[in-house]
Amino acid sequence: MNQDYIKADPWSIIEEGFDKERVKSSESLFSIGNGAMGQRANFEETYTGETFQGSYIAGVYYPDKTRVGWWKNGYPEYFAKVLNAPNWIGIDISIDGEPLDLNTCREVKDFARQLNMKEGWYQRSFVATMPNGIEVSVVSTRFLSLHLDELGAIKYEVQVLNREAEITAFAYLDSGIKNMDSNWDDQFWNTTRVHSEGNRAFIESHTLKTNFATCTFMEATLYRDGNAYETEPVHKKDELAVGMSFVVEAKKGEKIALQKYGGYTVSRNHNSSELRNAANSTLDKASEIGFDGLFEQQKKDWASIWEMSDIEIEGDIKAQQGIRFNIFQLNQTYLGKDSRLNIGPKGFTGEKYGGSTYWDTEAYCLPFYMATKNQEVAWSLLEYRYNHLEKAIENAEKLGFKDGAALYPMVTMNGEECHNEWEITFEEIHRNGAIAFAIYNYHRYTNDYSYVPKMGLEVLIGIARFWQQRFNYSEDKQSYVMLGVTGPNEYENNINNNWYTNYLAKWCIEYTSEQLGKVEKEYPEDYARIISKTQLTVAETNAWDKLASNIYFPFSEKYDVYLQQDGFLDKEMIRVKDLAKSERPINQKWSWDRILRSPYIKQADVLQGFYFFEDHFSQGQLEKHFDFYEPFTVHESSLSPCVHSIQAAKLGRMEQAYTFYLRTSRLDLDDYNKEVEEGLHITSMAGTWMSIVEGFGGMRVKDNQLSFEPQIPEQWQSYAFKVNFRGQIITIKVEKGTSSFSVTGDTDLDVLVNGKTVTLTPGKVVQA
Amino acid sequence: MNQDYIKADPWSIIEEGFDKERVKSSESLFSIGNGAMGQRANFEETYTGETFQGSYIAGVYYPDKTRVGWWKNGYPEYFAKVLNAPNWIGIDISIDGEPLDLNTCREVKDFARQLNMKEGWYQRSFVATMPNGIEVSVVSTRFLSLHLDELGAIKYEVQVLNREAEITAFAYLDSGIKNMDSNWDDQFWNTTRVHSEGNRAFIESHTLKTNFATCTFMEATLYRDGNAYETEPVHKKDELAVGMSFVVEAKKGEKIALQKYGGYTVSRNHNSSELRNAANSTLDKASEIGFDGLFEQQKKDWASIWEMSDIEIEGDIKAQQGIRFNIFQLNQTYLGKDSRLNIGPKGFTGEKYGGSTYWDTEAYCLPFYMATKNQEVAWSLLEYRYNHLEKAIENAEKLGFKDGAALYPMVTMNGEECHNEWEITFEEIHRNGAIAFAIYNYHRYTNDYSYVPKMGLEVLIGIARFWQQRFNYSEDKQSYVMLGVTGPNEYENNINNNWYTNYLAKWCIEYTSEQLGKVEKEYPEDYARIISKTQLTVAETNAWDKLASNIYFPFSEKYDVYLQQDGFLDKEMIRVKDLAKSERPINQKWSWDRILRSPYIKQADVLQGFYFFEDHFSQGQLEKHFDFYEPFTVHESSLSPCVHSIQAAKLGRMEQAYTFYLRTSRLDLDDYNKEVEEGLHITSMAGTWMSIVEGFGGMRVKDNQLSFEPQIPEQWQSYAFKVNFRGQIITIKVEKGTSSFSVTGDTDLDVLVNGKTVTLTPGKVVQA
Repeated sequence: MNQDYIKADPWSIIEEGFDKERVKSSESLFSIGNGAMGQRANFEETYTGETFQGSYIAGVYYPDKTRVGWWKNGYPEYFAKVLNAPNWIGIDISIDGEPLDLNTCREVKDFARQLNMKEGWYQRSFVATMPNGIEVSVVSTRFLSLHLDELGAIKYEVQVLNREAEITAFAYLDSGIKNMDSNWDDQFWNTTRVHSEGNRAFIESHTLKTNFATCTFMEATLYRDGNAYETEPVHKKDELAVGMSFVVEAKKGEKIALQKYGGYTVSRNHNSSELRNAANSTLDKASEIGFDGLFEQQKKDWASIWEMSDIEIEGDIKAQQGIRFNIFQLNQTYLGKDSRLNIGPKGFTGEKYGGSTYWDTEAYCLPFYMATKNQEVAWSLLEYRYNHLEKAIENAEKLGFKDGAALYPMVTMNGEECHNEWEITFEEIHRNGAIAFAIYNYHRYTNDYSYVPKMGLEVLIGIARFWQQRFNYSEDKQSYVMLGVTGPNEYENNINNNWYTNYLAKWCIEYTSEQLGKVEKEYPEDYARIISKTQLTVAETNAWDKLASNIYFPFSEKYDVYLQQDGFLDKEMIRVKDLAKSERPINQKWSWDRILRSPYIKQADVLQGFYFFEDHFSQGQLEKHFDFYEPFTVHESSLSPCVHSIQAAKLGRMEQAYTFYLRTSRLDLDDYNKEVEEGLHITSMAGTWMSIVEGFGGMRVKDNQLSFEPQIPEQWQSYAFKVNFRGQIITIKVEKGTSSFSVTGDTDLDVLVNGKTVTLTPGKVVQA
Repeated sequence: MNQDYIKADPWSIIEEGFDKERVKSSESLFSIGNGAMGQRANFEETYTGETFQGSYIAGVYYPDKTRVGWWKNGYPEYFAKVLNAPNWIGIDISIDGEPLDLNTCREVKDFARQLNMKEGWYQRSFVATMPNGIEVSVVSTRFLSLHLDELGAIKYEVQVLNREAEITAFAYLDSGIKNMDSNWDDQFWNTTRVHSEGNRAFIESHTLKTNFATCTFMEATLYRDGNAYETEPVHKKDELAVGMSFVVEAKKGEKIALQKYGGYTVSRNHNSSELRNAANSTLDKASEIGFDGLFEQQKKDWASIWEMSDIEIEGDIKAQQGIRFNIFQLNQTYLGKDSRLNIGPKGFTGEKYGGSTYWDTEAYCLPFYMATKNQEVAWSLLEYRYNHLEKAIENAEKLGFKDGAALYPMVTMNGEECHNEWEITFEEIHRNGAIAFAIYNYHRYTNDYSYVPKMGLEVLIGIARFWQQRFNYSEDKQSYVMLGVTGPNEYENNINNNWYTNYLAKWCIEYTSEQLGKVEKEYPEDYARIISKTQLTVAETNAWDKLASNIYFPFSEKYDVYLQQDGFLDKEMIRVKDLAKSERPINQKWSWDRILRSPYIKQADVLQGFYFFEDHFSQGQLEKHFDFYEPFTVHESSLSPCVHSIQAAKLGRMEQAYTFYLRTSRLDLDDYNKEVEEGLHITSMAGTWMSIVEGFGGMRVKDNQLSFEPQIPEQWQSYAFKVNFRGQIITIKVEKGTSSFSVTGDTDLDVLVNGKTVTLTPGKVVQA
């Protein structure tokens, strides 16, 4: 953890001073993205020090051959890798023949990075003394346009401070790139054409196996004194790279600016043969609007994102910066415009984990997108799983299930399973339940039922079928049991009767049965289509009902709590606080078997069930389970603190809730786990948002109404957030002792505040 | 399975006819070894078809970098690989300039292989028509000398049948070899010197990392009409290979013979700088004795092995061939001359599994070696583990154990763990118990207690300490439990309270306590040394006693059986016979999670405990447990049928016992699992021997006496076996209705036959 790394600021991420040790971490923290592509904050100019190059195109992946120690039947042959794409940002600078490279400069001063989250751009500036004595000042400003989402823009300003000099700026594209995270050092890209004309250049390449054709493009213009410098650049190319050199005799102190547009057109969005035309057309649009115009548009577009999703915190600038960083990164990663995309755990900030979709999406990200975007975005996320239903059925078949049972993959890019640890891939099946829960949650929040008859019911049937086949009847227990699973707490593997999974599965089956009834009555045509397609029989649904009414749940009479799994109480029940500090984190200090037989919990497991199904249990039950499980929880997953924060708040334990909140909100900014250089923890950022909105704000949907039970951490003066509820934006500002509410739109809206109905009228602020 | 592959013969393995599809399988089946080295039955001459080259030197291995999918703390960095060594058998033949290659010949007839188990040699013969029309007859005879165990000898006879021709024989050494089973295609050998002089050649090389220096050597002589052909061969060499060519103008039908000696001298046995001298000295000895002399010696040496270990079966030639093949292979693999060696699961017949030592050695191989060799051989096997005690303590420390607790590795070559599946490496810890049991078993059989005070007690203390730390107290069960283990049935992972492991652990602790008492009384000096070295305290042994008296064992009142583990009865209890044939073997047809939650048992688990501790349970208990577990056992381990065969015999179910016996004895010869090309199943061969001796013969040691309860399968007329019991060889011949016994030596020996004492007098055959 490093609390002095990033300067506190309400709207920006700021690093000051050049430290080679931090280059890779900062490359993650200052990443930019626009939902369609994204990139780490690599330098434009040559850097020979330690760096982790990464530029990623949404939905472009490579099925890397799986690596295993010991093969198990059922493992996927391939693992979808997030793919480093050709580099378009490169601008090599040499001055009087000497290349500018911060790794070799005599001195680097005034180095600063700024990520302006409010306006969506990134800037780096420094003054360096080169080995040849040249003192050079550089300011580089970069953004990925929200408006033209295939385009990025760079303004790279160079000023020689101590004498006249010849500046050469070489703007290039390079497809000779590698993935850090390659299993077998396979080549992932094949470059077919490298070409330049005028001040534009293009590299046409395609991914091997997946065959995503891509045109990486650029346009470079040199400016002197703010005017385009009319010169014919010198073109240079080889097999994998292409670019052009501009040479300027610069006066001492004269500002030379290289402006570069670049980006990708991809066969996911265009006809393969049209990629270069599409690139040219994007560049034409960019030229027409101009850098300044694009920049202004960028500010506007980010302003409208913030308009709907900002959280303001008064009295705690670090908390303010933290929450905005989380919201900003979520929006950089996924904007919901394309239902083929999803929210990768590292977004566009690194390669680790591969794949783009985990159960994080449904369990953690959906609430954020439902509340801060229009309803179509959440619909897109649901549609994504509907589109993968067939693959989920195939996936279940590989594991021996049949008749349309669906098991959604643990990790996926295209619907196929990407992960290959038997205890996770085959056994962490609760993910299936989160997908069903998201359907319920979407309906609860939006009141839009149309997804169920259109798509969702088929998904639910596949999932219910899976659960029914996955339980078996225990003669011994005279009830249905589920053997050999891994729950959300991945520090237990191959356990029997994980309470969370059993409970969620039972709920899935019952919920599916209910929706079948409702769709039959209210959408008879959809019902007929679905029954015919799925060949669902009455015998089958009868079997569901029989099973759901007789599922075994491990329970301790002594502690009056549901047990995480069979045999949980056989463990050596030493609380986390009584563990030596030198033993933590256990996932780094202990061997796997020791972790498994310990009582320690990686992230909410039973409590995840209490989070999803809060209204199934009393406050007293929540308290009992929280007090039983939290003391054994090590929170070694970025997804852990948020659920606990929400529950602590619900139990009125604001201090504890706040401690958990701190742990989640600045995880990356303060580099808690010393791994930020690998990329950011994107999906858990939605959990941070939930900690405030659901935790402190106590927001729920109850009986078809928004409900709040606001509280405020002692350390804060106030906080305010906005949610989009069924087309109206509600703003809630919470201060000590009072809260104020307002709403947009044309109609009044009744909300519950601490259990009492409050009517919000557009244009009026109500205190409650 | 292929029952027509190998011709039935009591003393030989015979293949007739050339089938390219079978080359790799036959290379395994016709492997030869002498305990110090061994090799697959590769052709001497060029073969361009599918082949799996392998020549192995005992104890020479390479620590290949581990390959994993997902790293877990505690995994070993390296995996000891059985190492393919430089090839010394190569003899390339060309006739009239055309190379002899069975893959390209127009016709191959009269092809036959014979492995003469009685005399310990391998012969291959054929008549081939080459592309150039030459008809050539070849007879190649090869053996690895037991007498000079660094030496092998080949007589390669060539005869051109249809005309005069020029025969060129190129005898060579080649260090340009690869391991099939390499994780990262690393280079394993570094060749430093390649050299020839006169009719000898040498390659000096060493393994990387482990730095085993090796001199691979050869001597070649050409014979015409039985006389050495005085000619100066043409020498040829490159960086990795060296050899010499002999050219002969052969008359039609003239027999030309190339005689080749070859082998390895290794720094394990010689000073590194003396390897070439040692090679020359071995070649000098060989030349002096001559091929025929060595061949005669080989027959004598094998005769004396058979003298002590043969099993004769009348009335069933395939069973006869099968059991001799098993005994032969065990003797080719391990002769007990070197306590640094052990019994690899594939011996010298393949690379798979790597490492040389599994718990197979103690649980399955030790009884064979105790009964068919002098006592020193079994001692060597025990000493091997004593020599690895320090490493076993380090291994336990890596997993968080302390204070001298020892965990022997799952797989090892030098005492370090080689395996890296958490559910096996970290959890299949019952292996520790087999090592303690072997100490007990050795004393029981030999009546030699000296190993315990000298070495064994330290091993036992390390093991007992491990068990004590591995159990934990369950408040819930008010007794000690062992969580997260894998039992012998590897189709269950990370289970709680595996009955076998708990029972064995309890026994280990109690046995260790007893030996402490005995050594204290009878070997006070050793006791003092050991207590001082291990720092064992009374508090510690008191804790052992307390634990051992309160261990939890899962038990079913309903079925009156111990349960394999907690929750076993929750499974869907469909018997193996009710499974569709298309679902078998489940390890090929089912995904891992499905196997894990099924009740199916890979190999004896609870029943392994009943095998080790037979006298702790009544015949009625055995029957109940056998009838409960065997119907769920799929026997998908080569180690499974033997234990069940022994127990079926004990229950008087000879038909079932015989069925199990058949499954084990010809596993490789009939290629049951279609994988014999990867190598033979060496360690399970000892189980085959046990099936006859302990199963059918009912041999046990009871109250310090040998005891027999002979039965005979209906299909057999008689069978006879020999055992070395405390220096006397007892021969037992079992016929229907009667058995006869005889003994060697100077003194009478009382044995029990069906519970009655029978006195055996040397020189007399007793019927009983």
